[in-house]
Amino acid sequence: MEHIARQSMNVCPFVSSMSASALKQLSKNSSLASKAGGCPVMGPALEHVRQYSTPSSPAQAQATEPFVAPKVEIPVSAGSNEVSFDYDGLYQNDLAKKRQDKSYRFFNNINRLAKEFPQAHRELEEDKVTVWCSNDYLGMGKNEQVLNTMKETMTKYGAGAGGTRNIAGHNRHAIRLESEVAALHKKEGALVFSSCFVANDAVLTLLGQKLKDLVIFSDELNHASMIVGIRNSRSRKHIFKHNDLKDLEEKLAMYPKSTPKLIAFESVYSMCGSVAPIEKICDLADKYGALTFLDEVHAVGMYGPHGAGVAEHMDFKSHLASGIASPAHETVMDRVDMITGTLGKSFGTVGGYVAASSNMIDWIRSFAPGFIFTTSLPPAVMAGTSTSIRIVRSNIEDRVNQQLNVRYVKNAMAGLGIPVMPNPSHIVPLLVGNAADAKKASDMLLEKHNIYVQAINFPTVAVGQERLRITPSPHHGQGISDSLVEAVDEVFTTLNLKRVPEWEAQGGHCGVGEPTPVTFENLWTDEYLKLTNNDMNPNILDPVIESLATSTGVTA
Amino acid sequence: MEHIARQSMNVCPFVSSMSASALKQLSKNSSLASKAGGCPVMGPALEHVRQYSTPSSPAQAQATEPFVAPKVEIPVSAGSNEVSFDYDGLYQNDLAKKRQDKSYRFFNNINRLAKEFPQAHRELEEDKVTVWCSNDYLGMGKNEQVLNTMKETMTKYGAGAGGTRNIAGHNRHAIRLESEVAALHKKEGALVFSSCFVANDAVLTLLGQKLKDLVIFSDELNHASMIVGIRNSRSRKHIFKHNDLKDLEEKLAMYPKSTPKLIAFESVYSMCGSVAPIEKICDLADKYGALTFLDEVHAVGMYGPHGAGVAEHMDFKSHLASGIASPAHETVMDRVDMITGTLGKSFGTVGGYVAASSNMIDWIRSFAPGFIFTTSLPPAVMAGTSTSIRIVRSNIEDRVNQQLNVRYVKNAMAGLGIPVMPNPSHIVPLLVGNAADAKKASDMLLEKHNIYVQAINFPTVAVGQERLRITPSPHHGQGISDSLVEAVDEVFTTLNLKRVPEWEAQGGHCGVGEPTPVTFENLWTDEYLKLTNNDMNPNILDPVIESLATSTGVTA
Repeated sequence: MEHIARQSMNVCPFVSSMSASALKQLSKNSSLASKAGGCPVMGPALEHVRQYSTPSSPAQAQATEPFVAPKVEIPVSAGSNEVSFDYDGLYQNDLAKKRQDKSYRFFNNINRLAKEFPQAHRELEEDKVTVWCSNDYLGMGKNEQVLNTMKETMTKYGAGAGGTRNIAGHNRHAIRLESEVAALHKKEGALVFSSCFVANDAVLTLLGQKLKDLVIFSDELNHASMIVGIRNSRSRKHIFKHNDLKDLEEKLAMYPKSTPKLIAFESVYSMCGSVAPIEKICDLADKYGALTFLDEVHAVGMYGPHGAGVAEHMDFKSHLASGIASPAHETVMDRVDMITGTLGKSFGTVGGYVAASSNMIDWIRSFAPGFIFTTSLPPAVMAGTSTSIRIVRSNIEDRVNQQLNVRYVKNAMAGLGIPVMPNPSHIVPLLVGNAADAKKASDMLLEKHNIYVQAINFPTVAVGQERLRITPSPHHGQGISDSLVEAVDEVFTTLNLKRVPEWEAQGGHCGVGEPTPVTFENLWTDEYLKLTNNDMNPNILDPVIESLATSTGVTA
Repeated sequence: MEHIARQSMNVCPFVSSMSASALKQLSKNSSLASKAGGCPVMGPALEHVRQYSTPSSPAQAQATEPFVAPKVEIPVSAGSNEVSFDYDGLYQNDLAKKRQDKSYRFFNNINRLAKEFPQAHRELEEDKVTVWCSNDYLGMGKNEQVLNTMKETMTKYGAGAGGTRNIAGHNRHAIRLESEVAALHKKEGALVFSSCFVANDAVLTLLGQKLKDLVIFSDELNHASMIVGIRNSRSRKHIFKHNDLKDLEEKLAMYPKSTPKLIAFESVYSMCGSVAPIEKICDLADKYGALTFLDEVHAVGMYGPHGAGVAEHMDFKSHLASGIASPAHETVMDRVDMITGTLGKSFGTVGGYVAASSNMIDWIRSFAPGFIFTTSLPPAVMAGTSTSIRIVRSNIEDRVNQQLNVRYVKNAMAGLGIPVMPNPSHIVPLLVGNAADAKKASDMLLEKHNIYVQAINFPTVAVGQERLRITPSPHHGQGISDSLVEAVDEVFTTLNLKRVPEWEAQGGHCGVGEPTPVTFENLWTDEYLKLTNNDMNPNILDPVIESLATSTGVTA
């Protein structure tokens, strides 16, 4: 790519017509100085390079500066008698450490069965288990309409997209899906990526690279994809305490309002189920002139009357009353600048996206390598996901039933003193507190009770906060919930795992048995849980999507 | 990158003749600044530099360091009366520049039809075009067996994986696919990612982060995904001249053999079709103690008797004779440490992978965030791809027919003086030389001739090297090839685009009309083009895959 930049410069008739020696000679000719003003570009360009080439830390400077050969002269032939770096030793050593600290991961072979949701088979088809930890939160991955759309699309348009969005991989399925996503979040535009990991990484990286002096404020519990994106952005960053507005404001206030800033956070934090104060973060963003970047990966499909996420949920009644086609003006969802989400969890397929203003979307589309230089999602995936979003958005009963099942499980666990980490969302995290026990508990549930709940260990959660993470769907009813609770109870007894009173006795941990209990209201209140699909107006959106689908997407 | 840009600028007689202070003065000149971006060459080049640059300004350098609060105290309330940064202005400004320099992209709405390959419809179903630029190189995206496998898998296992590989997203389809990939490349293991962009980025980033003092040697024409990965690795890097062994060796020789090194390169370079001297690069890697990282994205499926890529092709006869199940010992493919590839081009679906030793694969699996923290590919995609690899591997006739079609098109173009950039692979790049004409030619082919060939412009290729890139498949037979050549001929005449003699007259460009013609032998020699499926032994692999599929994958 450097080559591409250099070759591009060679197109300059002035430069390309000269031999290297002639150029060298010319560069020494001082009379040329008077002509320098004739180039409209070089001045600012050089200024730019000058700004970016002042080395600060020696390590960084070395990494980007032209390489200066080491002082010690090494004859080329000398290398052959020396020993190479021991690459394999390094891999083995790193892996041995992981085994030693129990963070080495063993993947469970889990084949989720569409017609027997939430059942799956293990290696052998007859060895069946109930899956309690999938992120197919609403079971849309087994939805007949979604599957039929995908099969029909595949029959007509084939298995893969066959190209990047710019080269043969842009089609009606991409246009429609991006329209559906934009409409769901009431944004002007949306852009679909291979995954939300890629979306978060690509967007944050780009912002840092293009917004000189950007400062990023990142919640300490942010997902790995955002951490990677922030790292790759190379922006100055501040980590603020989880959901702590005071800490965030103190950090924002350190900069003039005119400094470009970005607050990166999630709505539902997937491993503990905590929920961000989105509206108040938007207030701070307004006050200090910051962009807001909200990851709704673990919320889309499940919160808000139409499943647009927690930002929609914050203005529940107005969105419910006016339908998804109503303007978002002055709602919390409207105030958030960028919403990222996944197609691989509540919507049951694969992929990720960002929804934002049309200018911002066009800008990301035009500059983000992670979007530009990769094959589009298969047409069938995009078409099936559009169907899924449309179903999810008008099906409030799935959201209600999921929350009822969550409440049932949480209450039953609490009744037995099983340590559920308290939170207002659909995540049911059972605190275990060490990697070895968490794995033992997971293995025992699987082997003895045919229940699959993955143990969550470092680096997904902090050491000492290892847990079993349970995710009830609308289809995890009372019968299998009772079996789950019974099995967990037995495993906790057998392995002698700490229950609430024991955590309490040692001062509490992760919200369990704390002296001052965490108080909150469930996002889905008792009032909302009475809603049915009759309270929705599912068709109101259709004309909007239609017009969006024909007007959006930059088509030639 | 800054280094390259700076060096390039030094070549400009304007700049190099100025003192630093004079340049600084000029850069502050507002009228000069307003013209910046007006240069068709430096504008995009600089834009590119900014996008990919590894900044080393103090602020950016601090980004990765623990944050140190600024000395100046700013009262919290001060912010409210100031003006925020103009985010939207920045997006609009960047987009305006792109429109001005003609690098703004318009996506064509192309819906490739499985039953009418290589036909597609545009926005309206009746508006059909022949696609000549897809990367579904072998048409596997429309293969009936692949589609049936996908549909059956979907019926049984649903639309999406429902989780990461560690949490409910690991299954028999992933295990089998990774076994198929490992067997194809005769490696001990393989790991599947969302895309090969992600694979390249994740693996290179990880290597740089874990191998202290790693030095990366990168071919100057490497794909954006590798450039991003190398940037994110933060390793010291050297860009070596395209396929230039002497330049590579000079750079390698600057370090002791014990310094960890990695040579990153591609087999077939997608935009010009050039091919790397893989074996000789491996020789250098051995001599200087370097790892080799080979991207076979534009080669898998199409080179080697079993479609394992150019590395397999280098030992064509021995691999053909011994079958895919034979040990790879001492072959070129065996000597390459890491091979990355895509599932979204020749194999017709979506996704990417790395194949390597089992230790290395386990290490990447255990540490790379881009692998760990993302939803697995859908079971149907993984199953369909396994089917596709198995078909492709035993179907040498598709590879032969593709090359015959490529030769036909190249010869026909050459006969009319259409400037095909010479290369020994399946890529047919037609040199145009500027963005506006390339787009006009592409638009005219589409609108007047119902032929879709995307114009390729900056940043995918250098300014001045804009081209039409044609990719014949085994199914692009003589009839449509003749129509293509005729249409291209007419478009070249109508738009008065340069033909070979005109490039010759001005000294040649990009291998076209050069005084000393590029000489090479086609990878698929006349001898190889006589092979048929009868020369293959497709079943020899099956027992190997079976045993791999049950032994690989770390299952509990």
